[in-house]
Formats: sequence, C-alpha cells, structure tokens
Amino acid sequence: MYKVDLNSDLGESFGNYTIGNDDKVIPLITSANVACGYHASDPVVMDKTLGMAKEAGICVGAHPGLPDLMGFGRRNLSVSPDEAKAYVLYQLGALEAFCRVHHMKMQHVKPHGALYNMAAKDYELSLAICQGIKDFDPELIVLALSGGELARAAKDLGLRTALEVFADRAYEEDGSLVNRRKEGAMITDEELAVSRVVRMVKEKKVTAITGKDIPIQADSVCVHGDGAKALAFVEKIRRALTDEGVEICALDRIV
Amino acid sequence: MYKVDLNSDLGESFGNYTIGNDDKVIPLITSANVACGYHASDPVVMDKTLGMAKEAGICVGAHPGLPDLMGFGRRNLSVSPDEAKAYVLYQLGALEAFCRVHHMKMQHVKPHGALYNMAAKDYELSLAICQGIKDFDPELIVLALSGGELARAAKDLGLRTALEVFADRAYEEDGSLVNRRKEGAMITDEELAVSRVVRMVKEKKVTAITGKDIPIQADSVCVHGDGAKALAFVEKIRRALTDEGVEICALDRIV
Amino acid sequence: MYKVDLNSDLGESFGNYTIGNDDKVIPLITSANVACGYHASDPVVMDKTLGMAKEAGICVGAHPGLPDLMGFGRRNLSVSPDEAKAYVLYQLGALEAFCRVHHMKMQHVKPHGALYNMAAKDYELSLAICQGIKDFDPELIVLALSGGELARAAKDLGLRTALEVFADRAYEEDGSLVNRRKEGAMITDEELAVSRVVRMVKEKKVTAITGKDIPIQADSVCVHGDGAKALAFVEKIRRALTDEGVEICALDRIV
Amino acid sequence: MYKVDLNSDLGESFGNYTIGNDDKVIPLITSANVACGYHASDPVVMDKTLGMAKEAGICVGAHPGLPDLMGFGRRNLSVSPDEAKAYVLYQLGALEAFCRVHHMKMQHVKPHGALYNMAAKDYELSLAICQGIKDFDPELIVLALSGGELARAAKDLGLRTALEVFADRAYEEDGSLVNRRKEGAMITDEELAVSRVVRMVKEKKVTAITGKDIPIQADSVCVHGDGAKALAFVEKIRRALTDEGVEICALDRIV
Repeated sequence: MYKVDLNSDLGESFGNYTIGNDDKVIPLITSANVACGYHASDPVVMDKTLGMAKEAGICVGAHPGLPDLMGFGRRNLSVSPDEAKAYVLYQLGALEAFCRVHHMKMQHVKPHGALYNMAAKDYELSLAICQGIKDFDPELIVLALSGGELARAAKDLGLRTALEVFADRAYEEDGSLVNRRKEGAMITDEELAVSRVVRMVKEKKVTAITGKDIPIQADSVCVHGDGAKALAFVEKIRRALTDEGVEICALDRIV
Repeated sequence: MYKVDLNSDLGESFGNYTIGNDDKVIPLITSANVACGYHASDPVVMDKTLGMAKEAGICVGAHPGLPDLMGFGRRNLSVSPDEAKAYVLYQLGALEAFCRVHHMKMQHVKPHGALYNMAAKDYELSLAICQGIKDFDPELIVLALSGGELARAAKDLGLRTALEVFADRAYEEDGSLVNRRKEGAMITDEELAVSRVVRMVKEKKVTAITGKDIPIQADSVCVHGDGAKALAFVEKIRRALTDEGVEICALDRIV
Repeated sequence: MYKVDLNSDLGESFGNYTIGNDDKVIPLITSANVACGYHASDPVVMDKTLGMAKEAGICVGAHPGLPDLMGFGRRNLSVSPDEAKAYVLYQLGALEAFCRVHHMKMQHVKPHGALYNMAAKDYELSLAICQGIKDFDPELIVLALSGGELARAAKDLGLRTALEVFADRAYEEDGSLVNRRKEGAMITDEELAVSRVVRMVKEKKVTAITGKDIPIQADSVCVHGDGAKALAFVEKIRRALTDEGVEICALDRIV
Repeated sequence: MYKVDLNSDLGESFGNYTIGNDDKVIPLITSANVACGYHASDPVVMDKTLGMAKEAGICVGAHPGLPDLMGFGRRNLSVSPDEAKAYVLYQLGALEAFCRVHHMKMQHVKPHGALYNMAAKDYELSLAICQGIKDFDPELIVLALSGGELARAAKDLGLRTALEVFADRAYEEDGSLVNRRKEGAMITDEELAVSRVVRMVKEKKVTAITGKDIPIQADSVCVHGDGAKALAFVEKIRRALTDEGVEICALDRIV
C-alpha cells in the first residue's frame, strides 16, 4: 500500500503577533513542524500549538531555525557547525518540554528556512546538526530535502530519514529544486502539481524541468496554510492521493 | 552526620561576553545553577558549562530567568503565572538537551533574580512555576528561599524541596531576608558570617536582626564567584564546615 | 473654534509579522504614534510607516516602549528612571533618522503600553522620560493621559503638553481612568461614547462613573484601528465632531 | 604637515556584561566608533560612552552592526541592501540622540564586523548604506577599508571618505587585506608593524605580501584596546608617529 505524510510549518506566531492558520491547517496534515522560539514562536505559543496538535491527533516535530526573529529565519547566517548543533539542541530541548506537558512524543526534526537551505548544501553543517539530533534522541526522524546534504548526513549517522517533496516546485535532473529565480521554477498549474505529487508518491518519479523523468523519493509532501487558496490546494492534494489509493499518514508509520 | 550543599550561579556568559569565574568556582561547589538563555547564556555557553560541570563531577540544575537579557533578569516583569510556567518549561527543556549530550541528570531548578524574588512573595506564581517543573520531571528538586512562597508551593505539589540560606545576609524574625536597603542587612564580618553558616547547618538556628534566635533549615548555601575575595570567602566557608564535621555534598543526597 | 486631534498607534508590525490596519487608519487620524523597535516594529517597518504617513499628510510622533517584544511592551518592567530615559532617547533618535529620510518633523512623543501606564502613576519616572525628551528636542509635544504624572512632569519641565482622552473608557471623579476590572469601566454604548467625546471637546466636561460632572481637557482622542468595527467607530466619532463644528487637526495646531 | 587619526571600537558592553577597556583606550585615540545597540551596547551604555568621550575631548562616530547580538555582529547575514540601509539609519539615529544629550557632533560612520566586511566586497550593499548615511547627514565622514567597495560607494555619492589601515595586517598587491587564513596575514613583529604605519602615513606606501611596494592612503589607523599588550602597542604607534612629526588628530581635520 502506498503511504505519504503531509507536513506543514506550525506555531509561528509570536507574542502579540499572529501568523498562519494553524487551526485550519491542522485537520489537513499528519505532521506539524513546530517553531521553537528562535526564528519564530515563544513558550506560550509552543504550549498552545502542542495542545492543538494533541487534540487533533497529529504528530509533531521540531522546526529549529536561526536566531534571527527579525528575518523570520530566512536569511543565511554564517554560523559554525558547532553553533548550529548547539542551536538545534537548544530548540529540540525546548520543544521536548512541551511534548512532556502534553504527553506527546516528538516524531521528527525539520530545520527551518535558511538553516534548511544552508544544510541542504553543506555536508559538514548537516553532520553537526544531525549529531546534535542523534545525541538528543536517536529515534528522531530527520525530515530533509530529497537529494540534499542533510539527508545524506542523517543517513550516514544512522538516523531515520524522511524525504520531502514540493508540489509547487520544479526539479533539476539531479533531483535538486530549480532555483526560484529561474523561469519555470514554480509549478503554477494546480492540476499538474497535484498529478505530479501522485506520481512522485506512487511511481517514485517526477519529470525534471529538462523534460527527463528522474527518480524521487516522496515520504512527505510539504504544504502551506497561508490563505484560503493554499488551504484549498492542500485539500485537492489530499483528495487526489486518497482517490489514488494512497494512505495519508504520519512519518512514524512510513520510515 | 551533618550535610550541606553549596550552590552557585554558573554559565552566565553570552556570545562574545564573558562573566564570572566558572572554572574557579566549580571546584568549590556541589551544585551549579546553570543559566538557560533567557536572562543570560546561549546554547554554546550552555554546552560548554555542562561540559565543565561534568568533568568536575558536580551536579547541575536549571536557573531559568525572565526574558530580559538587557537587565540580566534582575528587573521585575509582570508576567502572568501561565507565562512564567511556559518560560520555565522552555528553559528546563533547553537545558535538558545539553544534559543529554553530556550524559548528566538534571538535579534541581532554582529561578533566577527577579523571577526568584517575585516567586518568593507570590504563591500563585510559584504554583504555576512548580506545576511546570512537575510536568517536566517530578523528580526535580526545587531550590528555594527558606521561608518563601516558592518553597511552600513546591511542597504543596509534592516536589522535593531544598531550602537555601545566605552567609552574608541578615534575617528577620519570620525567617525572611532583611531588605538590602535596611541597615544591618548585610553581614560584612566574614568570621561572623562563617560561624552563622555553621550554626544554621548544625543547630538549624540563626540569630535574627532583632537579636532573637530563630529556627532555619539550611539544605544549601548560596555562594558567589565574582572576584578573588568572593572565592576566598567560599573557601573559608568550606574549611569551617569541614572542620566542624559537616559533609559538603550535592542536594540529591540531602533532600 | 473647537479643535481636536485624533491619534492612533501605528507601525507595530515586525519582520514577517503584520499587525494593525495602518493603511485604513491613516486616512482617519491626524497624529500617528509610531513604534520604534523596542515593543514592536523594526527599521524596515519604521521606514515604510513614515512613508505612508508622509504621503497621507498626517503628523507623526514617537511611541517608545519597554524592551519587551515578547510582551508587546504591555507588561510592567521595573526599569530605573535613568534606564527609562535612555530607552526613550534611543527610540526618539531611531525614529528621527526616518523622519529625516522622509523630510518630516517629529511632532510628539507618547510612551507605549506599560511605560505609559507606569509613567502616568510615577512622577520620578515621568520626570526622567521628559528630561530625555527635552534634551532631544525641546519643541516636542508630550502626549499624555489627562490627569497623570507624565503630563505633570512635562509641564514642570516646560514642555508642550497635549492631553488625551478615551472614547470608550469611564472616568473616576479625580479624572483618572476607571480600572478595567471594575464594572462600568468600558463605555460599550457607541452613541453614548461619541456624545461623551463631543462634550469633552466642546464643554471640557465628562460625567464620571459616580454620576458627577468633572472638568477634563481633551486635546486628542485616542482611537484604534484593529478590525472593521473599530474603524467604523472612528468614522462615527469623526462625523459627530465635524457635525458639531469641531475641527479635527494635528496636535501641532492645538497646543 | 602629516596627520593621521587613531580609531578604535568603543562602548561594546551590554547590560550586565562589560567588554573592553574603554577608559584606558580613550586617552590614546582621536576617534571612537561607538556601538549602537545591534551587535553590542544598549542605551545606558551608549549614554555612558558618549559621556566619557565628551570628557576626554575625542570625536565619536557610529559603529552600526548587524542585528546579531549573540554573534557580536561578526557573522555574515544575508540582509538585502534595503534592510542594511534601514538598520544603519536606525542606529545612526539612536546614537544621534545621545550626541544631542552630550552636546556632541557625530563625526563619522564605520560599519562593524560582518557588515564592514560584507560592504567592503559588495558595491550595491555599500551604496545602500551610504545612501542612508547621506539621507541622515551629508556631512558625516564614512570610515572605510582602503580599497574596498564601501569607500568607492561613499565617494560616488559625494560623501567625505576616510580610509583606514591596519598596523597588524599584511596587504595584497591590490591593496586588499590578506585573508587571515593565509600565512603571513598577520604582522606579528611589533617594530615592523609600527614602522609600516609610519611609512603608510608619511610615504603613502606599504610593502605588499608579495614584496612589492604599493600605494596606500592612511587617514586613520584602527587600533584595539583589548588587553595590556594591545594598549602598549597603541602607545608605541603613538610615540613613533609623534617622533616622526606626524600629528595625531581626529578625522574631521583630515578629510
């Protein structure tokens, strides 16, 4: 039987600032990447987010970011591997506290924004991050870009690794994402995007931007909840997957 | 046999900023209160601090503070009990991550600065903090001011509670600390201070500022490492206690 | 001729976080209190906010807050008068930079949230804040709670002082605001609220919660833009004032 | 007559954290680069620093940094030119407030750490920063790396530009600093370093790492005050310059 996870970033509000549609996204996904107070969120938001996830019965993972609240963790910061490891550990621990309060088990880790992008291209950085994850809890699943260095480092350290794909992004022949600035980087045709997702999950293939079919592993699909259109798109993906006999379930049952 | 713990705040450096004499204090104490990144410290400092504590074989506890780095957590901030609980949980978790890396067990929790002072006078706030501690790990020892509300709340929730005394502070008849602004609040005579500590530990008594002897429980003595004089004073306390047959050991063996 | 200013807090977004309806409020007010990066806002937001205010032709003032982004500056923090003075100076200067870029003159200063409330009750704190304002620019108008200590300190230092009133709040006989926890503290009847505003401006009187009429000075009315209902209410106030022959204009033409 | 300025970073303490030997460096320099609260410092420190500079009669400039207190502004952060411009404006304004309190005129701007290094290599970034400086005060002097892009952008915008040299660093033939990781990057022989400074000032020449003499403009020498050895080195430079008939004076009298 085919299986796939749907993951989304959650709990990115901060203090008096609200962002996202957590209550609307939660029913549509199986794994939530929960912000941990560095690029977004605060302890009160984390507590509330885990409460919502627990009630909905979805799985949670840590979504550690760079210490750049002003930039929402989206700007590259030249941290050393040791700093990155310490920052990830700090955030994993912080989230763990709220998992305990809500009697939940942390399922996975997915670095956020610039940290995710930097790790995907930097094996040494990824190795440090994965060593931190392993030291913290060797059972954690690393949710990483298909074909990136983080996935490679996680596997090299023997960590459970889940690969994620994007419905709205084009791929290069080597399996990497086409740079956003390049023409054709975004898949804007929703029907096409949905059918690509189904194919990635069932056939483990996707047509690269060059027109050539390439192999791809899709353990999880990254979806977004910012706005009514995004939410409707997630529902389309869910329906298409279900219609095609794909079970939508949390990572824990896939890797 | 008489026993007492010596505790000190540790790991309060931040980024490029160094504070304290951690390497010199560590050999003199049995329990370290480790800053957790809110009022002081950062993940790299926390990692380093636990490494030093592990090597020296002393016990560590969390020293959570208010989110006021600019004020070093020493200024009262009107947080709600729920906020305080969430802030403490966040910091406990963060420190737990580094305990795991260094294969250490977190022994205790002692709130820092203004949070410590606010909790000592506010039962509701203390109850929220202690509930957070209990949710996180019911085996943790709460290190609190002798006679304060935090100690009362910790006991009411069934948490292990250790009471700390101060060598250089005068006490009111009700067991509370004499306000620093009042004359006679500080014990400046070192010999007297040392003999008071010994008496608090062995006889469970101290002479209040009024001249009357009052009962007091001294599970731990709070000491400081800022400067050569402070360090010499800790050595004097250690020597006097040892000469008087008092064993200096971590909280875990006392409460 | 009767005159009154309408002021509102503006530019409180931060990084990726958006808050408020600045574009909808701006056409309705004459003076904007612009956040300065401590309780809210960042340099990019400040630049954009002044650009919008400039285009709309409204006046701007500084809205300095406490360094508590997580609490949106709404929690009391026990800063010393010297700290408060330095924090206000820092924020005045920061906003001044963007005033220069947009060729605007800073009109006024109104402390935010907890700093506003703390100052209203603490003459010493208010004196330090006002001394900072005077050192920075003795022409600045201090926008303060009618009857509070900030207004008193500003006058004592010879600063131009504007007093603000609230449409939706009840007053005690001494002119102070009725505590929000007390019954009747909020004026929920919109017609009544509007007629009270008109009377405060034209007759310089308001009926206290006790039923007794008291004198009040209304140089400015504080209004809010959070939500469609709030915006509609501001429009009602504007219409009623205009119908009653009151000119709505910036503080600079009033005090 | 030969003239040169000696500049040093100052006022980088933060809250309870003290860094540097400001009181010892101030008598040795003519221009202080004052931290503005982003990479280091806080309003209270800024106020105190300007007070000390005023009393000593030295000139002050802004030392704006990246919003990375944890990394002391030494880590590259991929800010956009618009963000960099806004961050610099914010910090210029903040320092201006304290200049007013102490009746001082801001003399110059020197970006800090990673922002300095990033600007030196990125013309577009430098142009945005310099546009911000010009908008704020077209009389400000930009203190920049000799041969870098910041200097070029400043000149292109018609700003007064001062070029700084380093006593302890080797130069490439194109006038850029030899990368610290390369052998020979640091001039460790103090006598040599001092004589190189004198020659840069008087002959406007320096021997590059290749052995070839290259032209160089030395309006200011960057010196450090961290530790007794550094301070003694500054005194040696001062003595040698004075002995060689070079007047040591602030930038304002040089460019």
